[in-house]
Amino acid sequence: MPTYKAPVADTLFVLNEVLGYERYGNLAGFADATPDVLEAILQEGAKLAENVLHPLNRIGDEEGCTRHEDGSVTTPKGFKAAYDQYREGGWMGLAVPAEYGGQGLPYTVHSAIGEYMSSANMALMMYPGLTQGAVAAILAHGSDEQKQTYLPKMVDGVWTGTMNLTEPHCGTDLGLLRTRAVPNGDGTYKISGQKIFISAGEHDMSENIIHLVLARIEGAPEGVKGISLFIVPKFKLDANGNPGEKNGVSCGSIEEKMGIHGNATCVMNYDEAEGVLIGQENGGLKAMFVMMNEARLGVGLQGLSISEIAYQNAVVYAKDRIQGRSLSGAKAPEKKADPIIVHPDIRRKLMTMRAINEAGRALILWTALKSDVAHRSEDAAAREQAEDHMSLMTPVIKGVLTDKGFDNAVMAQQVYGGHGYIEEWGMSQFVRDARIAQIYEGANGIQALDLVGRKLGQNGGRAVQAFFKDVGAFCEENRADDKMAPYTKSLKKGLNDLQAATMWLMQNAMGKPDNAGAASTDYMHLFGLVSLGYMWAMMAKTAQEKIAAGANGSAEFYENKLATARFFMDRLMPETSAHLARISSGADSMMALSADAF
Amino acid sequence: MPTYKAPVADTLFVLNEVLGYERYGNLAGFADATPDVLEAILQEGAKLAENVLHPLNRIGDEEGCTRHEDGSVTTPKGFKAAYDQYREGGWMGLAVPAEYGGQGLPYTVHSAIGEYMSSANMALMMYPGLTQGAVAAILAHGSDEQKQTYLPKMVDGVWTGTMNLTEPHCGTDLGLLRTRAVPNGDGTYKISGQKIFISAGEHDMSENIIHLVLARIEGAPEGVKGISLFIVPKFKLDANGNPGEKNGVSCGSIEEKMGIHGNATCVMNYDEAEGVLIGQENGGLKAMFVMMNEARLGVGLQGLSISEIAYQNAVVYAKDRIQGRSLSGAKAPEKKADPIIVHPDIRRKLMTMRAINEAGRALILWTALKSDVAHRSEDAAAREQAEDHMSLMTPVIKGVLTDKGFDNAVMAQQVYGGHGYIEEWGMSQFVRDARIAQIYEGANGIQALDLVGRKLGQNGGRAVQAFFKDVGAFCEENRADDKMAPYTKSLKKGLNDLQAATMWLMQNAMGKPDNAGAASTDYMHLFGLVSLGYMWAMMAKTAQEKIAAGANGSAEFYENKLATARFFMDRLMPETSAHLARISSGADSMMALSADAF
Repeated sequence: MPTYKAPVADTLFVLNEVLGYERYGNLAGFADATPDVLEAILQEGAKLAENVLHPLNRIGDEEGCTRHEDGSVTTPKGFKAAYDQYREGGWMGLAVPAEYGGQGLPYTVHSAIGEYMSSANMALMMYPGLTQGAVAAILAHGSDEQKQTYLPKMVDGVWTGTMNLTEPHCGTDLGLLRTRAVPNGDGTYKISGQKIFISAGEHDMSENIIHLVLARIEGAPEGVKGISLFIVPKFKLDANGNPGEKNGVSCGSIEEKMGIHGNATCVMNYDEAEGVLIGQENGGLKAMFVMMNEARLGVGLQGLSISEIAYQNAVVYAKDRIQGRSLSGAKAPEKKADPIIVHPDIRRKLMTMRAINEAGRALILWTALKSDVAHRSEDAAAREQAEDHMSLMTPVIKGVLTDKGFDNAVMAQQVYGGHGYIEEWGMSQFVRDARIAQIYEGANGIQALDLVGRKLGQNGGRAVQAFFKDVGAFCEENRADDKMAPYTKSLKKGLNDLQAATMWLMQNAMGKPDNAGAASTDYMHLFGLVSLGYMWAMMAKTAQEKIAAGANGSAEFYENKLATARFFMDRLMPETSAHLARISSGADSMMALSADAF
Repeated sequence: MPTYKAPVADTLFVLNEVLGYERYGNLAGFADATPDVLEAILQEGAKLAENVLHPLNRIGDEEGCTRHEDGSVTTPKGFKAAYDQYREGGWMGLAVPAEYGGQGLPYTVHSAIGEYMSSANMALMMYPGLTQGAVAAILAHGSDEQKQTYLPKMVDGVWTGTMNLTEPHCGTDLGLLRTRAVPNGDGTYKISGQKIFISAGEHDMSENIIHLVLARIEGAPEGVKGISLFIVPKFKLDANGNPGEKNGVSCGSIEEKMGIHGNATCVMNYDEAEGVLIGQENGGLKAMFVMMNEARLGVGLQGLSISEIAYQNAVVYAKDRIQGRSLSGAKAPEKKADPIIVHPDIRRKLMTMRAINEAGRALILWTALKSDVAHRSEDAAAREQAEDHMSLMTPVIKGVLTDKGFDNAVMAQQVYGGHGYIEEWGMSQFVRDARIAQIYEGANGIQALDLVGRKLGQNGGRAVQAFFKDVGAFCEENRADDKMAPYTKSLKKGLNDLQAATMWLMQNAMGKPDNAGAASTDYMHLFGLVSLGYMWAMMAKTAQEKIAAGANGSAEFYENKLATARFFMDRLMPETSAHLARISSGADSMMALSADAF
């Protein structure tokens, strides 16, 4: 049975000491989450994650969800009770404005807690996670009436939400979407069609399920310009706004999946279901992207979450399992063998996971703070800069942290040897659960294209130039500091590779778009390495300062940060040059074969 | 439902045109497998794989094995009948000497066919696969009587075999082994203990199961020097050599695993089971390594096998699924969208798998030919050189091709987007099945240590120096050939990185063994890239020659080899420099943290 301990000290290190959380105190909501309160909230969230959600994780995997003949779906034993505790604790609306029943706290706090919750039970947390995406869309695009009607119940969690995009023939390319909406003449529409892969589409946790559904209004233009977004509740609301008559939507089946068995992934059939338009007619794509961007950051967070719990359990086993002797002489001579943590190749795995997790956490929290600035600052320039950052980093966080999250889960499983392959140890579940994060909310190849094809060039490259300037300035400022040299030298080399790759794209992808596509995944990972490397350089800087100032008895904590930063620079950063070489080779050999040759 | 087509033309290209199969005609067994016969055998094997084994692959995964209360185990529906067809076709003993009922054909042919069989149904093929390992051990270390008693039945396949090494507390470190053997005084022993992870340990396919069991004879020295190997049949043999009384061995449970559900992975309990010693007392480790080396090459082959079938199915989907438009203009304007094979990032995945599979196949077949030379040549120098090669390449083939095999299965699954995560499409099974190959028969970290810690230095580095000389000479010979330059330039760069890494190890690992451990996995993959790159350079050379000679109407076939070779050099070879950089950074940052800091 795997264990889990929320890394509260690491979250606090990043927020308070590295990112200067206190400096954001003037933003709305931050006054209610002073560093003391922040710590208390994190500790509360940690308890719920460790004691309530985590013990259900294996059960959820083993038991899965069950669809009954009437189309109803039962979630695994204990899930509803745990969800109720989550809901009653007010975690759903942590960062939602108070006027809709939320607590109005920083999104940053919500993200920090979100990591713990998804580490503890990713499948269970998808139910509130989808709801939060739907809440964000209604907040951004709903009418006042819609906000009043739906948000308080959804923020309370007695109603949950979903996102209905995919159809059997239509995933990435939403222009192919066929679900139809026919106006009833009274402002409502009849929605008909089939949606697939709908997470939390049907279940037994909430009194109503508010489906946000992309559909095409009769006579709308072809392609993505003719898509609108609708609110379709499972139960229509009666005159008092309570769930009444069953709507024409039902779960046709649930998918048998590789992982996240605790989450019901549904085929949803819409048969003249009654819905109302949210946002503009034919403006569905824009409204959907509000959910999508929120969801993509959430999925990046899942990558970190699984990576962290997989890492923790690899550590447990590596300390406990005795096998062989250290190459440098017995470390536990009183035992028949040393714990396998003495072996360098085991260390390589543990340190790789650790180095990625700690930097990934910093990158997510840094971006979460930018999200708070983007939504809450009164300074337009600051908002613009923060929005630029989020827009740029969303595909990087989603694509890179989920790819690394999966790789790390596999690495953690490998530490267990044969036991890792046996389901009862739980390591296989981490691998199987982590795998979906690379696929949904835009497969990672799509994230890479979003980065290269849209985000790089946006506003004349303003966001990416600002990022390069930030990282370059950090290296320059610390150039004369000998203690920082091991970190800044490697970071600067990575930045140079990233800038060279960007330049190569500018020169070679405009006239030949296949060069952009051929470069995209390598570019995304190159960008990720430099971003994570920047986080490590910043963390190293903070650690150096703390050590210089006496470290308050926590010298080892900071020394370990320095060693991990050094490992990142030694072992992970060198990949940037391979990415650059691949990118610069262009699309020719990749596209040389005719499709028939495959 | 996935499809499968055995790549016979590619096997023949590698054997006949690249590796000069005909040149081996003077070795025993090769006269019975002339190129014509070879092709006919491959076609027959392909049919069995495609039509009999493959259709059972999904069923095997879904149904799994069932242990009954009496300890008996039922394999999935159809497995026994398919196994019987395999057995009756004489595939089990293809390369076993005729005196024990085999066909005495080249091991190379056995390997070529083995790829198809494991692509089609890896879990099913493990039953004969384990038997073949046991046969190899009895051939190498059994007495004449043991050979006569066991081999004909095992080669016929009416009896199967297993390898019993692992115990709950003892995997890699066999010195910890506790299973006891007490002499009965009549040449037999009473074997008692528990073995875990025993593939094919109990099942309903054969009349008897011949367990090869590592155990410690009472009073034997501690550690690996006190381990002996025993033959323990499920049913003791009666006076006529037929299965009689049940022996004291039983299946206590079967494991619930991530994949290879069709294979029964058993906990085997030995309770004073009667066994006989095979090979020398306390010489078990040596005898076991005969099985192990055979098994490791077989596991490397499994990596290729799953990678190949996963690739083939990724191609099917990439051609069929329409989504989005090509960046360079619509390719299927008559449809609502283009097939996703037009997208560079999809091509990147397909070409990566293809480039690794074709080179992996060449590397395996090259090594299989060396195995035939090692076992069948009358020239002592040739045997020595071939044994050197096999010894060096075994960990590379096992470690690299299974790591790449898993990565490729994941990549193929990614091509399917959300559908890849749904079990019914079969891509998840490939990922789950491929995963075990990185773990069993020595986890890949152990392969890397075997390469760096044992194989590099063996006989003064004779094997590795011979390999460097081969590759270097190839580059030198083709240096003046402009058409070969794109391949040899990249290969030479890779070789330089590999030689630099080897030099670094010589200078830094003797005095500080942790530097060897810290370098091992990167070194193994660096070695793998150069080996695969060498295969591609050789294949490119052959393709150039064939094209220059008119190509007999197969110009496209050879042009595609050149394009894929170019892709390998552009996209996969650049990783060598990152490996070198990581290796050269040494063990310091990897080992800096105290174990308690984790």
